[in-house]
Amino acid sequence: MAKPFRIGMVGYGFMGKAHSNAYRRVGNFFDLEFDVQLKAICARTAESAQSFADSWGYESVETDWRQLLERDDIDAVDICVPNNLHKEIALAAADAGKIILCEKPLAMNAVEGEEMCQAVERAGVANMVWYNYRRIPAVTFAKQLIDDGKLGRIFHYRANFLQDWTISEDLPQGGNGLWRLDVAAAGSGVTGDLLAHCIDTALWLNGGISDVNGMTETFVKERMHNLTGQVEPVGIDDACAFMCHFKNDSLGLFESTRYARGHKALYTLEINGEHASIKWDLHDLHRLEWFDHRDEGPLRGWRSIHITDGEHPYMDKWWVPGLQIGYEHTFVHQIADFLEGHAAGTPASPSFRDALETQKVCDAVLSSAQSRQWTDVT
Amino acid sequence: MAKPFRIGMVGYGFMGKAHSNAYRRVGNFFDLEFDVQLKAICARTAESAQSFADSWGYESVETDWRQLLERDDIDAVDICVPNNLHKEIALAAADAGKIILCEKPLAMNAVEGEEMCQAVERAGVANMVWYNYRRIPAVTFAKQLIDDGKLGRIFHYRANFLQDWTISEDLPQGGNGLWRLDVAAAGSGVTGDLLAHCIDTALWLNGGISDVNGMTETFVKERMHNLTGQVEPVGIDDACAFMCHFKNDSLGLFESTRYARGHKALYTLEINGEHASIKWDLHDLHRLEWFDHRDEGPLRGWRSIHITDGEHPYMDKWWVPGLQIGYEHTFVHQIADFLEGHAAGTPASPSFRDALETQKVCDAVLSSAQSRQWTDVT
Amino acid sequence: MAKPFRIGMVGYGFMGKAHSNAYRRVGNFFDLEFDVQLKAICARTAESAQSFADSWGYESVETDWRQLLERDDIDAVDICVPNNLHKEIALAAADAGKIILCEKPLAMNAVEGEEMCQAVERAGVANMVWYNYRRIPAVTFAKQLIDDGKLGRIFHYRANFLQDWTISEDLPQGGNGLWRLDVAAAGSGVTGDLLAHCIDTALWLNGGISDVNGMTETFVKERMHNLTGQVEPVGIDDACAFMCHFKNDSLGLFESTRYARGHKALYTLEINGEHASIKWDLHDLHRLEWFDHRDEGPLRGWRSIHITDGEHPYMDKWWVPGLQIGYEHTFVHQIADFLEGHAAGTPASPSFRDALETQKVCDAVLSSAQSRQWTDVT
Amino acid sequence: MAKPFRIGMVGYGFMGKAHSNAYRRVGNFFDLEFDVQLKAICARTAESAQSFADSWGYESVETDWRQLLERDDIDAVDICVPNNLHKEIALAAADAGKIILCEKPLAMNAVEGEEMCQAVERAGVANMVWYNYRRIPAVTFAKQLIDDGKLGRIFHYRANFLQDWTISEDLPQGGNGLWRLDVAAAGSGVTGDLLAHCIDTALWLNGGISDVNGMTETFVKERMHNLTGQVEPVGIDDACAFMCHFKNDSLGLFESTRYARGHKALYTLEINGEHASIKWDLHDLHRLEWFDHRDEGPLRGWRSIHITDGEHPYMDKWWVPGLQIGYEHTFVHQIADFLEGHAAGTPASPSFRDALETQKVCDAVLSSAQSRQWTDVT
Repeated sequence: MAKPFRIGMVGYGFMGKAHSNAYRRVGNFFDLEFDVQLKAICARTAESAQSFADSWGYESVETDWRQLLERDDIDAVDICVPNNLHKEIALAAADAGKIILCEKPLAMNAVEGEEMCQAVERAGVANMVWYNYRRIPAVTFAKQLIDDGKLGRIFHYRANFLQDWTISEDLPQGGNGLWRLDVAAAGSGVTGDLLAHCIDTALWLNGGISDVNGMTETFVKERMHNLTGQVEPVGIDDACAFMCHFKNDSLGLFESTRYARGHKALYTLEINGEHASIKWDLHDLHRLEWFDHRDEGPLRGWRSIHITDGEHPYMDKWWVPGLQIGYEHTFVHQIADFLEGHAAGTPASPSFRDALETQKVCDAVLSSAQSRQWTDVT
Repeated sequence: MAKPFRIGMVGYGFMGKAHSNAYRRVGNFFDLEFDVQLKAICARTAESAQSFADSWGYESVETDWRQLLERDDIDAVDICVPNNLHKEIALAAADAGKIILCEKPLAMNAVEGEEMCQAVERAGVANMVWYNYRRIPAVTFAKQLIDDGKLGRIFHYRANFLQDWTISEDLPQGGNGLWRLDVAAAGSGVTGDLLAHCIDTALWLNGGISDVNGMTETFVKERMHNLTGQVEPVGIDDACAFMCHFKNDSLGLFESTRYARGHKALYTLEINGEHASIKWDLHDLHRLEWFDHRDEGPLRGWRSIHITDGEHPYMDKWWVPGLQIGYEHTFVHQIADFLEGHAAGTPASPSFRDALETQKVCDAVLSSAQSRQWTDVT
Repeated sequence: MAKPFRIGMVGYGFMGKAHSNAYRRVGNFFDLEFDVQLKAICARTAESAQSFADSWGYESVETDWRQLLERDDIDAVDICVPNNLHKEIALAAADAGKIILCEKPLAMNAVEGEEMCQAVERAGVANMVWYNYRRIPAVTFAKQLIDDGKLGRIFHYRANFLQDWTISEDLPQGGNGLWRLDVAAAGSGVTGDLLAHCIDTALWLNGGISDVNGMTETFVKERMHNLTGQVEPVGIDDACAFMCHFKNDSLGLFESTRYARGHKALYTLEINGEHASIKWDLHDLHRLEWFDHRDEGPLRGWRSIHITDGEHPYMDKWWVPGLQIGYEHTFVHQIADFLEGHAAGTPASPSFRDALETQKVCDAVLSSAQSRQWTDVT
Repeated sequence: MAKPFRIGMVGYGFMGKAHSNAYRRVGNFFDLEFDVQLKAICARTAESAQSFADSWGYESVETDWRQLLERDDIDAVDICVPNNLHKEIALAAADAGKIILCEKPLAMNAVEGEEMCQAVERAGVANMVWYNYRRIPAVTFAKQLIDDGKLGRIFHYRANFLQDWTISEDLPQGGNGLWRLDVAAAGSGVTGDLLAHCIDTALWLNGGISDVNGMTETFVKERMHNLTGQVEPVGIDDACAFMCHFKNDSLGLFESTRYARGHKALYTLEINGEHASIKWDLHDLHRLEWFDHRDEGPLRGWRSIHITDGEHPYMDKWWVPGLQIGYEHTFVHQIADFLEGHAAGTPASPSFRDALETQKVCDAVLSSAQSRQWTDVT
């Protein structure tokens, strides 16, 4: 008999939808010891909350997250609000003894993140950050290949996250759909939003980063602010690139921008090892490119592997070979893994502590862009 | 207040899972006048039925589909069983006044299909066949482009459906997972299973077919039969190709096989018009290839359109640009369209009558392969 | 000391240029026992001939090919004129004891072709037809893989040759650049022009064809004729598709058209074997796609092999890995192979006799399209 | 009547072959006022020189380049020797009043380069550096698109040059084929060899670079030296990445390595503008990827333009649409352009002075990698 896993979600935007979908679907496709129940959705206005609850089947609504934390019928709090609210809610949730599932990035910066880590560790509550791209089957498979030693010594890691949605100068900043352009709400621009994903995956696949050297740019210097109604300076980074050294002596090169015309959400990564190389991109997330130097000489080439076979990670849960899954499935996989780990008493990954490492790299990148110096990740 | 739409499903295999997922999800993503309810699942053994019901949330189980049809709390019957059982269930369901949603192909042949059409038309029950690939956003978008006249006069239509899963001679035929290899259960091989999809899309995009000329092959002549335990002749077509003329004077070329090493479920189509051409394939279903001769000369090229923008069909219901959906979403779209049409009293497409056209083409193809003659589609 | 190989070329169009380039370059890249010398170019007008001679370094010009055949300082005649002139020149050249290098297709039809074969065999002169695509390194490599048995039993062979340059109804037929649209000069349309290439490669890679079933279409029924100044019926096939059985029991599907908007010269081929499959296309001629089922399960995928390594056919003669060659190199390879074979006294391939097989398949395809019947290749 | 353009070449390696091929072919495809004549090849041993002369048709051989410079029958000297010899030969050639065509990079460093520029300018001799990739039709076309303003404001420029041929630790350094691994002969590793190409194209397409910040690595620290027979430290950079600011305020990111398993010579570039973006890679050099935001919304996508039409740069000289050219053609284009400019008395590009700009960027990159500081390009 499945135990209940009762969710209270704070926030109801794009990520609220993605997480809710995961909660609703995981039980259909994964055998779990838990029965996920959508207990409450919390939003600032009751109307918004109720509308979301109706769509997704939340049993109740709250308009004050503190109220939510006081409820006994909630096991886990899902934090889906802008970055500047993560810490306060997480600290209170930890105090309340709730399991915490927090959207990425963990915090506005590493100082906040450290505080949050200490809070959950002190409280002894399970915790996870939604770096969902680890759970794309192709990426998970890449992890297996690397851990199996199939690549040998790693020489290069490069990742890009390219978008083009903020090129227009008429786009305002701030408020519901556009808080990511408002430094007060987001903490940073593409670094925390996009590069954080690239960094999380990189740390997972290729280990720690020693030092970084970054460059940022804000192409549009002023934008109308939705919350003030005034044209205000733009405080976020529109673009960020950085070079780095990994602890395994490989070189890293990362770039992110929202000014790359033609790319909607093109997260790409490539790893070059002594024996083999891997490429992947989010625009065709169901494929992994694989080159193996140990193949017979004249037959060497990049293989485009359609990651839809039962023997590929997670894919035995879905359809049949050749039939692809999409973006939203990553969240299903992540909550499935979390619940499986939770049932076994083993920590879910990435925990707050894991995600803090990404935060530290982000901080070092932004700091080095300011100081124009190589900066250690500490 | 949403009206209930109460489903009773017969069958619980791969397609049962795909349809059930659609029923469970459609309300989260589409605003509907109906509230889909999973009333009952019917399988030959109570155990299988119960296990499926538990996974998917069916309220009750049945082991006799006739029993299911007698229930007053069922509005619609979903037929997800092998092809040889479609007709009998459909006729009874029509008699019982149930809405019928039937897996493709409609029937074992056009004679059966005609009988089924007459039954649903006589009974006046809404009906639909699950040719889901019409609802891939890229394919739906192709339909819009064609209907807008952007291609001009059509010269060529070609489609392939290539798989490689039956190459081993050790694979048996018959029984649960393998009824598609058993001519008694399936009626035909790749023609009804795979080409039927290609034909349905073709008729939808390019209009009727006048005559056909087919070639079939059974590469492995005998296989162990799971139901008899004997090595028995293989009655299905392992491969089928045909040439045809469309009524709009364009030429068609179709091919399907389960012996194309390297292809899992590679359904590809291409349409060449006077002004523009379209290509699409199921292995990257979120992309549409588009060539427009009206582009500025030296800048002409095939565009790879990532069909994930809000202005692409269905995509405003899902995520944000750049984030792809997968195979299963086609069923969500189809039931959403059906329910919307049903609410409006307009016929859902493809109806039994629409699907009969595909059946007639299949019959003509198989007949021409036998007679080695061009054969009219009548 | 290299022996002279003295060329007299008849015709100076596109193919004259391609062949001349091969003659000029082969000695720079291949070690040969022969020193290719461009002795004479023959064209109807002295002016055209002289202009071509100046560009390419021919030592002299002729305006009557019979004159050319009488010259003692010519070892080999290269026939680069429209198809309807091949036979007469070839018969006379054989009589004159000249080596003959003839553009494809061999002849207007198999009857003519048989006559030509008998003439060269009677005369005992070396002979070759310029089916140059056999000498694309990727295609030659495919041949090696097949001959090594790496594909196992072959199930399917499919090839397309798609163009789009004749869609406009304003394009005239006949005369210099457009004789390919004039049935009197070309014998057929896409069948002899494009499918002949596909068939030659297919026979080489996959062996003989037993029977065929074709369909042809002429989309534009009348065009202005450049030679008569009148609008005249179009006698060629604008499009041709055919199904066939190979002697090795594999199925073939071929299509060609000049009405496929977006394709300039897209010759594609695919072979599906028991163990492995091959794909290739002329628009990226330096790549071979390879799928090997014997690869480790989850790592199976189509490999895109960049055919530019020294161990790939012919590529040790050119540059370094990663640097591609182009269309014209095929002719260099072919004349190099011919001369090497000629030096060794072994027959060059494809000989007239080899090319006659392609002609027979073309004839059978056109005949079956007329009779609407399966037709044996005899 | 064509004037003679009499070449004396110093060096006979890979580049000597590529240049010689260009000289031999240019007259066949381009209408020029000059008749290129291969007068002399100079190599250290008469035997090597004679063998090369025999293959390529040089009329004479020299073993001392000073001797070559004294000859009156030489108009132009082509310097195809390792980088450490460029300056001395160029200075002497300028003194001798010879036109100079010099392999890239111009020199060992910018100081040498400046000296060379002053020498040719003082002597008033025409001069050019073989940055051949400007003359790939797709790249030349990109230049036209940018100059036409089709991209609008530029935000990002990124380029990679990835190879994998030096991964083995057993590969020695120094001597004929391997002087590129010997810092004494090459001056630097991938920076001068590969990044120099990327930088030259970037300066041409996107204008000057203000400052740079580089990172280099030597993965294999010691290699056997062919010239000394000893294991010696490796002085070159195996990999180099750098960030930069262009003078037009766009951001640049460049990377090069010989340790990227799976890439033979993958030079890729991408430019993101306000309205449109461009991508190109050397492994499919006949294609240009083009994204135009001004296309109709739902039809926007990356176009793969097959750069083989007569209206594409240089392509009217070659074959017909769909038929690709290769690597070597870039040299033909460059010498054709040079000779056309020379005939008109207008400077050929890139001149020594143009190439010096690339050298300055290389120097700044290497310097910044040493100092770990942002470094101005001066």
